[in-house]
Amino acid sequence: MGSVLNVIKIGGNVIDDEDQLQSFLEKFAALQGKKILVHGGGKVATRTAADLGIEAKMIDGRRVTDAAMLDIVTMVYAGLTNKKIVSSLQKFGCDALGLSGADGDTIKAVKRPVREVDYGYVGDILVDSVNTLSIKKFLEAGFTPVFSAITHNGLGQLLNTNADTIASSLAVSLSKIYDTRLIYCFEKDGVLSDVNDDKSIIKTIKADDFELLKSSGVIYEGMIPKLENAFHAIGKGVKNVYIGNALNLHLYQQGEFGTCLLAK
Amino acid sequence: MGSVLNVIKIGGNVIDDEDQLQSFLEKFAALQGKKILVHGGGKVATRTAADLGIEAKMIDGRRVTDAAMLDIVTMVYAGLTNKKIVSSLQKFGCDALGLSGADGDTIKAVKRPVREVDYGYVGDILVDSVNTLSIKKFLEAGFTPVFSAITHNGLGQLLNTNADTIASSLAVSLSKIYDTRLIYCFEKDGVLSDVNDDKSIIKTIKADDFELLKSSGVIYEGMIPKLENAFHAIGKGVKNVYIGNALNLHLYQQGEFGTCLLAK
Repeated sequence: MGSVLNVIKIGGNVIDDEDQLQSFLEKFAALQGKKILVHGGGKVATRTAADLGIEAKMIDGRRVTDAAMLDIVTMVYAGLTNKKIVSSLQKFGCDALGLSGADGDTIKAVKRPVREVDYGYVGDILVDSVNTLSIKKFLEAGFTPVFSAITHNGLGQLLNTNADTIASSLAVSLSKIYDTRLIYCFEKDGVLSDVNDDKSIIKTIKADDFELLKSSGVIYEGMIPKLENAFHAIGKGVKNVYIGNALNLHLYQQGEFGTCLLAK
Repeated sequence: MGSVLNVIKIGGNVIDDEDQLQSFLEKFAALQGKKILVHGGGKVATRTAADLGIEAKMIDGRRVTDAAMLDIVTMVYAGLTNKKIVSSLQKFGCDALGLSGADGDTIKAVKRPVREVDYGYVGDILVDSVNTLSIKKFLEAGFTPVFSAITHNGLGQLLNTNADTIASSLAVSLSKIYDTRLIYCFEKDGVLSDVNDDKSIIKTIKADDFELLKSSGVIYEGMIPKLENAFHAIGKGVKNVYIGNALNLHLYQQGEFGTCLLAK
C-alpha cells in the first residue's frame, strides 16, 4: 500500500462564514502529507440566483438544476467559492489546484435519469467515474486538488453533483492507490451519544456497533444516511472515516478528531 | 531548445457566440503538440453584473474592478466561461485543465498601484510572475492548461488581469523552456494592408518593417498596441507571433494562418 491520503469534505455552513472558513483552511493547509479538499457551495448560489430573479427549486431536499441554475452553480461553486479557497490555501503555503470534474477529466458523471422527478442537470457518479490516473498525477506532482461539486459527462455537459458523494467516491477510488482516509467536517464535534450534550462524542464506531446504535435509537435520524455512506466507503476500501468539527481539524493528526468509523 | 509550445489567446467576441466558440475549440483541440489556451471574458460578465444591479465602470477602456465586480469576473471568467470551455475541449478529446493564476500558484500578480486612477482589484504581471515550473508539470503530464484572466497576489487576494497580457507573459516566460509561439485570435483574418479589404492580409511582418508600416500609416490605430506587444514578446524570446482569425486556426499547422510576426 502506498502513502497516506486524506480526503476532506467541508460543508456549506463553514463556507458561508468567512472567519470560520479562513480558520479551517489554515488548519487544512497545515495538515501533513497528501490531501484533497472537496467543498460544497453554501448559500451564495441560492442568494445569487435570487438576486438574478431565479428561484431555487428543491425536491426532497435536493436542488433541481435547470439550465439557468446550472450556470449559477458553475459560476459560484467552480468559480467564486473554489478560487477564493484556492487563493487562501496558497496564502497558507498549500499548493492548491482548483478542479471541477471536467478539469483533467477527473470526474465523469452521468445525467440522472428522469423517473418520477426530473432533477435536471444533476450528475450521478458511477463506479468508474473517478479518473485516478489523472488525480494521481496532480498528487505526485505536489499539488493539493480542491474539488468543487461540478462534474461533466465527457460530452461537453457540466453537471451539478453532490459534494458528499464526490468526497466518498474519490476516497473509494483512490484507496486502490493510497492508504486513504475520509474526513467529513460538519458543525458538530462528532457523533453524539446524547443529542442534547455536545460533549457526548462517541470516539469510535465499528460497523457491527452501528447496527446496534441505530436500532437502539442512539443515532438520530439526520446522522443515519451520513454514517451509512461512511460505512459503505469503508466496505469499499477506505481505511477509516472521521466525522467531526471543521474547526478542530488541527486535532486530527493527534488522533483527537471527532468520531472515527472503523470496519471492525 | 525543447519541444514546441503554442500559446493561444481567444477573445471575447468568439466566446460570446456559442457556434463560433465550439468551432474554434474543435480546431484548438485538433492542434498537435503542447498548447495553452488563454481566454478573455466576453460580455457575460457585464451582463451578469447588470442583472445583479452592479454597473460596469470603465476608465480609458479598462474595467474598474471593485470588490463586487471582482466577485462577478471570478464567477464568470474562472467559473462559467472556463468550465464550459474545458468541458467542450474534453468532448473534443483534449485533456484540458482550467486554471486561474491561483491554481498551482501559476501566475502571481501585484495589485496595480493607485496613481491618478484606482483600478481596484486589477493585477499587473511582473517579470517573474509566471511559475514556469508549475505549468511545465501540467504540460509534461499531458494536460492542456486553459487560463482565465484571474490571477492572485499570493496573499489570498484574487486579481482581475488582462488576458492579452497573460498570454504574452506566459509565452515569454515559457520560451525559456519551450520553442514558444504566441497566437492572437481575433475577428479579422490577419493584419491588413488595406483596412477596407479583408483579403489584403500581410503574410509576414519583420520588426524593421513594422516601424515603416507604422510611420507610413498602413497599420491602423487599434492594431498598433497589439503589434507592439507582439514584437515585445519576440524581443523577449518568443519565436514567432501570429495574428489571425479564430475560425481559421485549422490552417495554422499548414503555415497558412493570418499574419506572422518575425524578429528579422
